[in-house]
Amino acid sequence: GPLKEVFFFPTEVACTEHVFNPDSLFPCPCPLPHGVETSFSRLLGHIMSASSSLDLCVFAFTNFSLSRAVLALHERGVAIRILTDMDYTLITGSQIGAIRRAGICVRCDCGAVHMHHKFAVLDGRRLITGSLNWTLTAIQSNKENVLVTDEPDLVRPFIAEFQRLWDANDPI
Amino acid sequence: GPLKEVFFFPTEVACTEHVFNPDSLFPCPCPLPHGVETSFSRLLGHIMSASSSLDLCVFAFTNFSLSRAVLALHERGVAIRILTDMDYTLITGSQIGAIRRAGICVRCDCGAVHMHHKFAVLDGRRLITGSLNWTLTAIQSNKENVLVTDEPDLVRPFIAEFQRLWDANDPI
Ligand SMILES: [Zn+2]
Ligand SMILES: [Zn+2]
Repeated sequence: GPLKEVFFFPTEVACTEHVFNPDSLFPCPCPLPHGVETSFSRLLGHIMSASSSLDLCVFAFTNFSLSRAVLALHERGVAIRILTDMDYTLITGSQIGAIRRAGICVRCDCGAVHMHHKFAVLDGRRLITGSLNWTLTAIQSNKENVLVTDEPDLVRPFIAEFQRLWDANDPI
Repeated sequence: GPLKEVFFFPTEVACTEHVFNPDSLFPCPCPLPHGVETSFSRLLGHIMSASSSLDLCVFAFTNFSLSRAVLALHERGVAIRILTDMDYTLITGSQIGAIRRAGICVRCDCGAVHMHHKFAVLDGRRLITGSLNWTLTAIQSNKENVLVTDEPDLVRPFIAEFQRLWDANDPI
């Protein structure tokens, strides 16, 4: 059947360098534990698996590794659209500035209504959703859940909602 | 196949009295629109469908209608366990006090780590999860998603995580 995965946070802190450099010939010199699969490395692995598109709807985005994954996909030619909450693009540590400067298309949901989503659709067929904001606190300190699935009945409504919100926030 | 539903918020404001009194012979006298199915009435309908158990893990719980649904299930003999975040039980409008006074078992996740979950498992076989907190703001004002499924591969990990957190927060 279609992929269905759930993982929970907080997760152990471990090196995630292998997700970004799977073919590296050199052992990573950082002081974190290596060879440990964590909820976070699994999340990063799913994001890095995108080959054609990534639609991301996140209310806060301050996590550096998640930003690194998005920038790596962009460099690889993956079409990226990010919808975020205006109130949070200016907070300390927000990665949205760096992402914009790289040429990635970001739209702010500037309505009075708070954008509380945290989901991503990869290649129009894989959904990542849950309680987890794309922040450092969420990943290292909160009890959170993430659900990943290719189940079309679950992915389809999120694709439609993303498009609806994207069109509604066209700056032109 | 197993149930898979997704709905989004904010939703229209409409009367939800029919969810609580489906067999009422009298038309509801309230000023809200009637006969409208909304994301909120669908969410309430799912919760009210529980026949044997409800395990609820919510970080904030201030919504009166959701509290009413939980109290109605309790009165009907449904076994209810609620895990919530200590920091939020004392906030204005929290329904946890009323729920405790009704004799429902509530445990507080008192750890340093923030409990950010918002999921429920009904009858050990239906999962409700998403970005939505059980607050009034979330339902009326935020852009939120809720996913409901009977898919065993998705329900099972949440059952295990609930039990793990429940045991970890045994007050004795
Ligand atoms: Zn390392
Ligand atoms: Zn009414």
